[in-house]
Amino acid sequence: MAYITLEQANAIITGAFAKGAELGLKPLGIAVLDAGGHLIAFQRQDGTSTLRPQIATAKASGALALGISSRKIADMAAERPSFVASLGPIASHGVLPAAGGVIVVGADGRAIGAVGVTGDTSDNDELCALAGISAAALTAQA
Amino acid sequence: MAYITLEQANAIITGAFAKGAELGLKPLGIAVLDAGGHLIAFQRQDGTSTLRPQIATAKASGALALGISSRKIADMAAERPSFVASLGPIASHGVLPAAGGVIVVGADGRAIGAVGVTGDTSDNDELCALAGISAAALTAQA
Amino acid sequence: MAYITLEQANAIITGAFAKGAELGLKPLGIAVLDAGGHLIAFQRQDGTSTLRPQIATAKASGALALGISSRKIADMAAERPSFVASLGPIASHGVLPAAGGVIVVGADGRAIGAVGVTGDTSDNDELCALAGISAAALTAQA
Amino acid sequence: MAYITLEQANAIITGAFAKGAELGLKPLGIAVLDAGGHLIAFQRQDGTSTLRPQIATAKASGALALGISSRKIADMAAERPSFVASLGPIASHGVLPAAGGVIVVGADGRAIGAVGVTGDTSDNDELCALAGISAAALTAQA
Repeated sequence: MAYITLEQANAIITGAFAKGAELGLKPLGIAVLDAGGHLIAFQRQDGTSTLRPQIATAKASGALALGISSRKIADMAAERPSFVASLGPIASHGVLPAAGGVIVVGADGRAIGAVGVTGDTSDNDELCALAGISAAALTAQA
Repeated sequence: MAYITLEQANAIITGAFAKGAELGLKPLGIAVLDAGGHLIAFQRQDGTSTLRPQIATAKASGALALGISSRKIADMAAERPSFVASLGPIASHGVLPAAGGVIVVGADGRAIGAVGVTGDTSDNDELCALAGISAAALTAQA
Repeated sequence: MAYITLEQANAIITGAFAKGAELGLKPLGIAVLDAGGHLIAFQRQDGTSTLRPQIATAKASGALALGISSRKIADMAAERPSFVASLGPIASHGVLPAAGGVIVVGADGRAIGAVGVTGDTSDNDELCALAGISAAALTAQA
Repeated sequence: MAYITLEQANAIITGAFAKGAELGLKPLGIAVLDAGGHLIAFQRQDGTSTLRPQIATAKASGALALGISSRKIADMAAERPSFVASLGPIASHGVLPAAGGVIVVGADGRAIGAVGVTGDTSDNDELCALAGISAAALTAQA
């Protein structure tokens, strides 16, 4: 499977929202990007603040930009803050060092897209991203 | 009604896609923005090109920026091309002079958001935007 | 009350300047934004430096972007500096981690705008923002 | 007189709004900038669209950038559209080729600031800018 379809992207978002409801989280914003970092689908729940589209997108886009989850980018930022800070201005949608951005891989392990979730704690955001990927019968990058 | 809810935004997109299917249009990208120009929901059908998120957003965002539909901005651009071109660099999501960006108004006539559609001809894009707004039982700016 | 009117925005600025005069503060720059982060009114007192418009706007706009005061963003930046730094490039008016940016809420607790004050210490800037909101008979986010 | 004071800037805005009311114009957005192109004061009347702050600022800022009114920049754009279009990306607040941006000069004829008005036709916007400058007992660039 080389592409995330719109149907799958919507299933990811529905699954992630379901996880958020199950955990009683704050309202979320969720972006699903294709392998090139271009938005397939986005939804922002009522009551979220204005920057959620950009934050969700930057979590996913930054993950694709570096080939690792935004959780690992956060680890990288703790060790090398200037390096990670320097990426923001040169990445068209930014690079966001906080968990919640997860790469989706195909059967060959290659990235076919990414999911970015924002609105609650970064750890909870990531749980929702993983739940959404699973709900769509897709595979998160290990 | 002062806000477009996520449920309404999704209904707009579903209704606009239905219109596109009915008319046999090319795959579409559709953005729904709040009154401040911030994305509530976006969906891009399979087979659309990479800039569709930005084009759909700029149609809707440009409409909100000037208070008129992107069709009227296209008319303005025909008469005053330099004026409209100068808006791109100062508008955070750009201003796109082509039909398909339609403002949604509340009971008092004030903007509560906007819809941007891209993928087919501008005229057809606009038909889908209007159909989506109608399907969600909302009101397009006259 | 879903909107801050221009009359109210001017009352916020007048009230904030009055607080600054009462406390003997340095000259201030004050921005009032609508819920979407768009400027309603701005005034900069004689003798202030050139970036005050952007700083005042970024305090208020950043608060709306994340849904919390710029004081809380400063607390967040102390714990997670790389995360907050990464928001600047993706927020159209920046995100400024220093007190002085306060969200104004309507009767339903939802943001209807924000005030940003700059020129003195951040603590004093925030006192003026709160005084201005109170002078206009509006409500600051708790 | 080397500077426009905040008191004068507010008088310009009040005078320009009065002219708009007298002429029955649409709601306006008005920016007053210092000689360096930095905002002193801005007000946006209820019902104006979201890009008015940037348009008003770009009319005034572009005028200062080139040393001529934004009406003359519009004339220039008619003759040399590519030249004027190229200025937008390199001017921090853009350059807007439409009447309504007027330079304010001191006793020696040197720029001490500029006024930008937007919301109605460009011709009417300029009438309001000139009326505001006159109401503040200041002098528009000939």
